Amino acid sequence: MRIVRFAHPAGMSFGVLDGDGQVAQIEGHPFGQISFTGQRFAAADVRLLSPILPSKVVCVGKNYADHVKEMNTGEAPAEPLIFLKPSTSVIGPGDAIRIPPGSTNVHHEVELAVVIGARGARQVSPEQAMASVFGYTIGNDVTERDMQRSDGQWTRAKGFDSFCPLGPWIETDLAGVGKDPADLAVTCTVDGELRQSGRTSQLLFSVATIISHISQVMTLLPGDVVLTGTPAGVGPIRPGQRVECSIEGLGTLTSTVAGADPTSTAGTR
Amino acid sequence: MRIVRFAHPAGMSFGVLDGDGQVAQIEGHPFGQISFTGQRFAAADVRLLSPILPSKVVCVGKNYADHVKEMNTGEAPAEPLIFLKPSTSVIGPGDAIRIPPGSTNVHHEVELAVVIGARGARQVSPEQAMASVFGYTIGNDVTERDMQRSDGQWTRAKGFDSFCPLGPWIETDLAGVGKDPADLAVTCTVDGELRQSGRTSQLLFSVATIISHISQVMTLLPGDVVLTGTPAGVGPIRPGQRVECSIEGLGTLTSTVAGADPTSTAGTR
Repeated sequence: MRIVRFAHPAGMSFGVLDGDGQVAQIEGHPFGQISFTGQRFAAADVRLLSPILPSKVVCVGKNYADHVKEMNTGEAPAEPLIFLKPSTSVIGPGDAIRIPPGSTNVHHEVELAVVIGARGARQVSPEQAMASVFGYTIGNDVTERDMQRSDGQWTRAKGFDSFCPLGPWIETDLAGVGKDPADLAVTCTVDGELRQSGRTSQLLFSVATIISHISQVMTLLPGDVVLTGTPAGVGPIRPGQRVECSIEGLGTLTSTVAGADPTSTAGTR
Repeated sequence: MRIVRFAHPAGMSFGVLDGDGQVAQIEGHPFGQISFTGQRFAAADVRLLSPILPSKVVCVGKNYADHVKEMNTGEAPAEPLIFLKPSTSVIGPGDAIRIPPGSTNVHHEVELAVVIGARGARQVSPEQAMASVFGYTIGNDVTERDMQRSDGQWTRAKGFDSFCPLGPWIETDLAGVGKDPADLAVTCTVDGELRQSGRTSQLLFSVATIISHISQVMTLLPGDVVLTGTPAGVGPIRPGQRVECSIEGLGTLTSTVAGADPTSTAGTR
């Protein structure tokens, strides 16, 4: 099932995207038993939002050997190296990645994104971990490479508003569409030029291992998102460009790239 | 005004803690115009919770010169060094800090905590930043020192469930009680022994500078918490101990210390 979140004239809803390009509206949230409102929209008439608003986005660094090599910052870690992106960095399909003022080194990083289901995940073993998965979507772990190097901590470099495109939908049954999450093609193009191309079979730590590892540290709540690392080929993007992240069975997550948004809360009430 | 959040037989509420030890229940949340339900509870009869459930906790590292020195990991940074603690790390007054299995090097770090108000903070200057402050409370940036060193990224070391005690209340008018947030005594004792003692006047980057800096990166939402760094004297805590973090005008945040909580979500529905 393809779960989307979308804006319509009366507000925002979750929905199920059908093969015929229709969105069937869901009552409330999609975790647990789904009930439909009976309302249907043509997908072309609604705006898709990030398919989930996670309480946290937990990421794994250095999880493809060829990316570890291109970064040239040491060996692959002995266990998953985790970091956080703030929930305020999440944007949806079609939204703009905003380049911070003065920055010239913002990189794309396409990643398989795991969405945690109703039971959450706390202290689960790798064998138990997959029962905590709700589904899969595409993430882009946008990173300001100069700040990543200079700060040491990656929070600023990866935490800017708009630095976590997610979408376009959550597939809850990859097996049902003949795909194995452990062996999916993962690509990123910029203005049509292929930049990244890998397979999730190259993950140094598997989805189950990652979820188990994180769950020993922090409780993963329903809707939380785990980004599983990026293959080689990361590189800069600049305003005016178009970034397309694709994963087999999960569609294409398109982002535009724009200059900084100077909107300030100062003076507001 | 001292804003608390508390558990009572009918659920959880925000309230105002009076000088006479009574909690006046608030309708909804305390951001914006406060309205009271008329219900009052004796503070002794209710359980205080973390005074806020932040969407994110943004922290500043190396913000007291004497702590930078004791850590012996290089100079103080040229601008605020930010990192995140997950919302799942937050616990309330009296709750137990849980030591991860096998760990022997979990440290206390008392910090002045800033709670962001109704307008949030995005792209604000240092001059504008204080208008985004709702109030102040006490935070303990609990840290597993061995993992902090070995991981490089601080997310795991600082992100365990229970590693962010907050409370006991949010003071929204420090000036009204004759205190200046820029010059408050900050202490931490373990089993009554003084471990940390500093003043917020020693902050390398002021509250206004920190909020402005963060707001250029990520939008701070109402209720988000900013931890401003810890003075020297950090050190290990172990199960059975009692940690008391005190800040002038903000009371004392007490935590017990206990072994790991092995509760797992595996097998739950």
